[in-house]
Parts: sequence; structure tokens; C-alpha cells
Amino acid sequence: MFYTNRRSPASLLSTLRGVPGHTEAVKHARKELWFEVPERRAYLNITPQVQEFVGESGIANGLCLVNPMHITAAVYVNDDEQGLIRDFDDWLERLAPHEPVSQYRHNNGEDNADAHLKRQLMAHQVVLAITEGRLDLGPWEQVFYAEFDGRRRKRVLLKAIGE
Amino acid sequence: MFYTNRRSPASLLSTLRGVPGHTEAVKHARKELWFEVPERRAYLNITPQVQEFVGESGIANGLCLVNPMHITAAVYVNDDEQGLIRDFDDWLERLAPHEPVSQYRHNNGEDNADAHLKRQLMAHQVVLAITEGRLDLGPWEQVFYAEFDGRRRKRVLLKAIGE
Amino acid sequence: MFYTNRRSPASLLSTLRGVPGHTEAVKHARKELWFEVPERRAYLNITPQVQEFVGESGIANGLCLVNPMHITAAVYVNDDEQGLIRDFDDWLERLAPHEPVSQYRHNNGEDNADAHLKRQLMAHQVVLAITEGRLDLGPWEQVFYAEFDGRRRKRVLLKAIGE
Repeated sequence: MFYTNRRSPASLLSTLRGVPGHTEAVKHARKELWFEVPERRAYLNITPQVQEFVGESGIANGLCLVNPMHITAAVYVNDDEQGLIRDFDDWLERLAPHEPVSQYRHNNGEDNADAHLKRQLMAHQVVLAITEGRLDLGPWEQVFYAEFDGRRRKRVLLKAIGE
Repeated sequence: MFYTNRRSPASLLSTLRGVPGHTEAVKHARKELWFEVPERRAYLNITPQVQEFVGESGIANGLCLVNPMHITAAVYVNDDEQGLIRDFDDWLERLAPHEPVSQYRHNNGEDNADAHLKRQLMAHQVVLAITEGRLDLGPWEQVFYAEFDGRRRKRVLLKAIGE
Repeated sequence: MFYTNRRSPASLLSTLRGVPGHTEAVKHARKELWFEVPERRAYLNITPQVQEFVGESGIANGLCLVNPMHITAAVYVNDDEQGLIRDFDDWLERLAPHEPVSQYRHNNGEDNADAHLKRQLMAHQVVLAITEGRLDLGPWEQVFYAEFDGRRRKRVLLKAIGE
């Protein structure tokens, strides 16, 4: 079942794009997305907002960082399917439960230690490719903001560089 | 056991490289790696393919994103040691089990909910440094494609920018 | 509790910064931070060192990769609060325990398999935005080096590109 492709049976085809020798000067852009969700936990599909930012930036080819500026939230890429989102929530609650609040040393006047842990489990940030002025995503890749300690204003940083 | 290096006992040496004031125009490159593994789960060392891409790109210094375009696979950096790869597989199966398939709401006509979860656990993507035209990796860092729902054609996006 | 913001009740404000049409040539910089911690596990706040590197690089806007060059350590962003750091350590030890060492196939003459797993759980690397010559972090975001197999010299790679 386990092997590396040093002697891999996997087919491996590839296509190179980009123009050898073609160069442009650096462009960069920055934007903040603000959220205030009424629940403790929520999963928001922010793909349209990130795509809009890429369009505004004028960057044709580059990289785009999508990073929560708070340490009790995550940004991840996965499927926008409601059953799966509930599965994620159950699973995160099983691996890093909110209750009992007293099980965490951090919860000394606070109750959000589990949010700090859940964020690490879900991969806390993503970097996305920009190609020909658009997010370069597979057909089912969707960008989510995962809120684990909501009911207050929080933000996500978008930063893109490229040409 | 726990401390920060605000007053750290850790030795901290550092070396700066790069040429102050030295500037070049942006280069960028894109490539897809295609896979079709015959098993549900597999762990492929793709370091040679990523290295080859960096060479083709002509980029001397920059960043390279390695991102699965499917949401049931991961890309990660770790050791190419067969015992460890089996340990990873056992561990992922323990924390996000495939069976019983019915435990997941997503498995309504599908059976791959666990693959969506396993991918998040393993850190779904990596960004690698490019220095002097090569991947800038430590001696044991190897880049892996982790397939959690195989037996069909899937792909990984490589996108590099730099000078 | 779960929804996407296709029809989101979340407020969403945003601010675009950056100068449309403004372009500069690429700058890049590289640095290594070296550590030798006397314990097996430790959590070091390296935000000041990363900030110093960004200042030295002369980069005003760009991206900075912070990547451990060893596969038994992680770099992550979270809170610098001692209770939380102990919570993280307990939690990592529960999800990927060190003992019994014999439970891992990798521990054949070694005892650090758990370190390879813990690193994946914590998100193994981070990419940070650089804006106006400084790390573009939220008020509580701090960058940590998490050592899971210490007592020897190890290093973290800093690589920045931008303008």
C-alpha cells in the first residue's frame, strides 16, 4: 500500500506553463475582510471575496496569502458541502472539545482554549496561486473562514504579490 | 519545560544571505503533476518532480507553492522512511477513521469523508523556498503527495514566483 | 449554526491598500535561525527574530516564509500565553503520545516518531505578510518555533520576497 515514486507505479504527466524569459515588475495588494458571526462557531465560504480581491489587485500571476489575524480562527480549503461541514465540526469538537472548560489552563477568565487548538488542527492559513488574473483552484477547492470563537468583530488578511 | 526566547537559554546564531539593493524583475512558472494511484491511500515522494520544475522555471530566488487541486489529498514535508509512513497512516486512520462509513454525514452516496479530514490533519499544502535555483531544504526534508482517495486521476499544482 | 456567506448574515467590510499600477523590482532575502534547546520539547517565541530579518531585508511589501529545516519541529502562529502553551503540549501528547516508544515502527533505534506526528498536527510552517517594512500581524499573533525533539542544534529558514 505504501510506496514512494522513486520507483512509482503512478502515472505522472505534467504541463509547464509560463513564458520563459518573460519578466514583469512586482505588484502587491492588501485587503482586510471583516466578520462578525452571531454564533461561537461558523464556517464561511469566502472564495468570492478572495476572487474579488485578486481582480482588484491587477496581479496576473503570483501568490495570495489568506491569513486570519486572530488566533482562534482558521482559513482552510475544502468542499462546500453542508454534511461535510457538520462532520468537520463534530470531529474538531471530538479532538479538541470545548467542554469542560476547566480542562484547559488557558481558561482562566476565558473559555476559548479549544478555539486555539481547533485552529491548529484545521491548518490555520492558506496560500493560493494566481494565474491569468484569477485564483488557480481545482474544481472543488473552496476557501473557508472557520470561526471558533465568534460573536465579535474579527478579520482576515489578504496579501498578494506577483506581476 | 516551557519558555519563550524573550529570555531564552537557546543559542541563536544567524546568517543573512542575499544582496542588499540587488533587484530583478518577477519571473513566474506553473506546472501540474498528475497522479493515478491504484490504492485508496498512498504516500508519494515528489521531491524530484518539484526540483525539476524549479530548474525549468529559471527562478533563482523565490517561493514555490505545492498545492493539491483536490480536497481529499495533502502535500506535506517529512521523512522518507517506510516505518514512519506506516506510522502516519495508522495514526491518521485512528484520528479520522474510514470505517464505519456511515459515521459521516458527507457519506451520502460517497465514502470519502475521512479523506477530507485526513487531509486537514496532515497540513494540506506547503510553500518551499528557492535559493540559487534549487529547493532550499534541510537534509531530511522531503515533499510528499498524500493520496487519501485514489484510484482516479488527480493533480498537484506547482506555482513559483521570484527572480 | 453552519452556513456559507453566499447568503451570509455576517457583516463584511473591507479595505483595499496598495497603489494600483505601482511596481517595483523583486527583492529577496534569506536567513537561518539556529536553536539548541536543552529539553526534548519547547515552544519559543521567535517573532522578534523574524521582525529583525524583515527589517534587514529592506523589503517593504511581500511574503515571508518561516519554515523549520527539520522534520521533528514546527513553526506556528498563536498566543504567547503560558497556560495555553501547556495546554498545547498536553493536547499534542494526548493525540500523538511519546510513550510507549515501541508503538511506532519508526522507532527502530530512534525514539522520535511522535515528534514527526506532532509537527504535522501543529501546522508545520507559516507564511507571513510584509507591509510597509514590517510583519503584518494581528494584535495577538505571535510566531513560535515548536521543538519536539531537542537537545541538538536545529535551524529555521527565513525566506522573503517582495519589493
